[in-house]
Amino acid sequence: MSDPTPIRTEIASLGEFGLIDYLAKKNRTIHSSTLKSIGDDAAVIDPQGKKMLVSTDLLIEGIHFDLMYTPLKHLGYKSIVANVSDIIAMNAIPSQVTVSIALSNKVSLEALTELYEGIYAACDAYQVDLVGGDTTSSQKGLLISVTAIGWADEDDICYRNTAKVGDLICVTGDLGAAFLGLQILEREKQLFLSDTKIQPDLEDQQYLIGRQLKPEARLDIIQSLKRAKIKPSSMIDISDGLASELLHICTQSNVGALIVESQVPLHPDTQLMALKFKLDPITTALSGGEDYELLFTIHPDDHQLIQHLADIYVIGEIKPASEGIQLQTTGGNFHPIKAQGWNHFNNI
Amino acid sequence: MSDPTPIRTEIASLGEFGLIDYLAKKNRTIHSSTLKSIGDDAAVIDPQGKKMLVSTDLLIEGIHFDLMYTPLKHLGYKSIVANVSDIIAMNAIPSQVTVSIALSNKVSLEALTELYEGIYAACDAYQVDLVGGDTTSSQKGLLISVTAIGWADEDDICYRNTAKVGDLICVTGDLGAAFLGLQILEREKQLFLSDTKIQPDLEDQQYLIGRQLKPEARLDIIQSLKRAKIKPSSMIDISDGLASELLHICTQSNVGALIVESQVPLHPDTQLMALKFKLDPITTALSGGEDYELLFTIHPDDHQLIQHLADIYVIGEIKPASEGIQLQTTGGNFHPIKAQGWNHFNNI
Repeated sequence: MSDPTPIRTEIASLGEFGLIDYLAKKNRTIHSSTLKSIGDDAAVIDPQGKKMLVSTDLLIEGIHFDLMYTPLKHLGYKSIVANVSDIIAMNAIPSQVTVSIALSNKVSLEALTELYEGIYAACDAYQVDLVGGDTTSSQKGLLISVTAIGWADEDDICYRNTAKVGDLICVTGDLGAAFLGLQILEREKQLFLSDTKIQPDLEDQQYLIGRQLKPEARLDIIQSLKRAKIKPSSMIDISDGLASELLHICTQSNVGALIVESQVPLHPDTQLMALKFKLDPITTALSGGEDYELLFTIHPDDHQLIQHLADIYVIGEIKPASEGIQLQTTGGNFHPIKAQGWNHFNNI
Repeated sequence: MSDPTPIRTEIASLGEFGLIDYLAKKNRTIHSSTLKSIGDDAAVIDPQGKKMLVSTDLLIEGIHFDLMYTPLKHLGYKSIVANVSDIIAMNAIPSQVTVSIALSNKVSLEALTELYEGIYAACDAYQVDLVGGDTTSSQKGLLISVTAIGWADEDDICYRNTAKVGDLICVTGDLGAAFLGLQILEREKQLFLSDTKIQPDLEDQQYLIGRQLKPEARLDIIQSLKRAKIKPSSMIDISDGLASELLHICTQSNVGALIVESQVPLHPDTQLMALKFKLDPITTALSGGEDYELLFTIHPDDHQLIQHLADIYVIGEIKPASEGIQLQTTGGNFHPIKAQGWNHFNNI
């Protein structure tokens, strides 16, 4: 017995205004700062005495995601996570998002509904209000443009250009898993394309694949830092890989850095899978993107305090610019860290 | 003698971070509210005691613009205008924008530079700071996503849902010209495609084409309303045509309206060209988009005051919802106004 044909509703049957009404139907605002949400020329936000933060990102089919292995609900969720992560990386609280979507006629209303289920689930998880956006057609593929807004007291905001020599370098969670999750999905896709009778075997790699498809932003970390009265001296989120983000902090702060390989947190699944892909595990941390963990520096006086906080790891120290940006390997060697990591992905 | 080959630099030669540096080089911030611009995870804005407004729009090649007849500098300018117009339509002052761009490898660095010249020219004209964005590649075509931010005192903000029976309906400038400008450009494109030896003849239609390619948002109008101490009872910008915008105000305010055809401002060139296209001129005002003029309502007590203000025209009156939304034609007949105007563009 074959599956029943899934229902497919053309988006054109609703019209643009009908579509907006449909998508906004499930919209609830929770912030008292959201004075006006969807339905006018602009949203209105009451900053309530705080400074406002704004960040924006584009996600494009074929460049940033592949609908062959990305469930739409996860894609919607991730598109919000990637943006609130930028607000969190300023040590600020995300509060509102706008979401604009361009769709080809390939996308049905049912597919769009799934995408928005993910978007609303992330809005719920991070307690942000969806306050506006734009919907349009595209000639090819799906595109999502998200702008995230947040707030903070001015004194709490953490920039990239304020790391000082002697500061300790910290990261959260574990690194490299999202990159390996992507490699597994790509490998299974290629196998499937070569023989459509082969079913993908992803069962034993749920952790790595989950890190790629459904990442989380570390709102919990900035909340626990605040409770511990630790203000990072600089901070950035890890979307392009540890190497790239560290270089941003060092370049903008005019400092160098030493990272100790053995201290960089790697999940056991990351270590095993990296070797299967013939990669040095540390490379996945340095150059693999989309972990959405935080990289930050703290004053050495805060070292004691931070040791009591879960899921934060001290991986090195800020050095004078003259000492460069280096990795001390487990073998005791020193490698300069470059924009794409000290070892490129030549062997994939 | 043939023209020298234009210089073409591939964007890939700069890399993403190089590209951001290149584009940000000409960036100057003027607002004291812009605490942090391009260069961190998010921009930081000081609301300085005001409410913040946020609006966002997508512009997609092949859907919203055609590079065959749209100079990139004008496209950049218009992408900012379309967004600050939404902020202005809330009776608020635009202050910051973020601009995200997705580019196919068809776009050279020289082309992108032109686009940004237009973006920066508009930022200058409307005194807004470009504070962030995202740059990425696309598989097909050029895409621009702009988010505009502005500020206002809460009491000054004009919504769509607050028009009252008896209020006078006003519009600014003249309507329908941008739509006809587009029709001329499309006609000349088709002629050119049918015979590439035919050179487009646009010389005598500079006004209409200018309204399509280089529109302006009416910051001047909300400034003169403020000086005259007039606060509109509702307001919206005219991006989809007078009919569509009037329906938004009426539906959201739960009122009806009567528009007097003879009072709707049409440029002489619009009247002549509409007839050439075998269209009733009023149709271009009702259903032609992209004028970026303002549609607003005022309390009847403000009638005297508004008559002294330049470029504002009273075109009708808000009626009870039971009377519907009607156009009184110059012939004295009454037509219901529908979402796409009372006469569709069937004859184009």
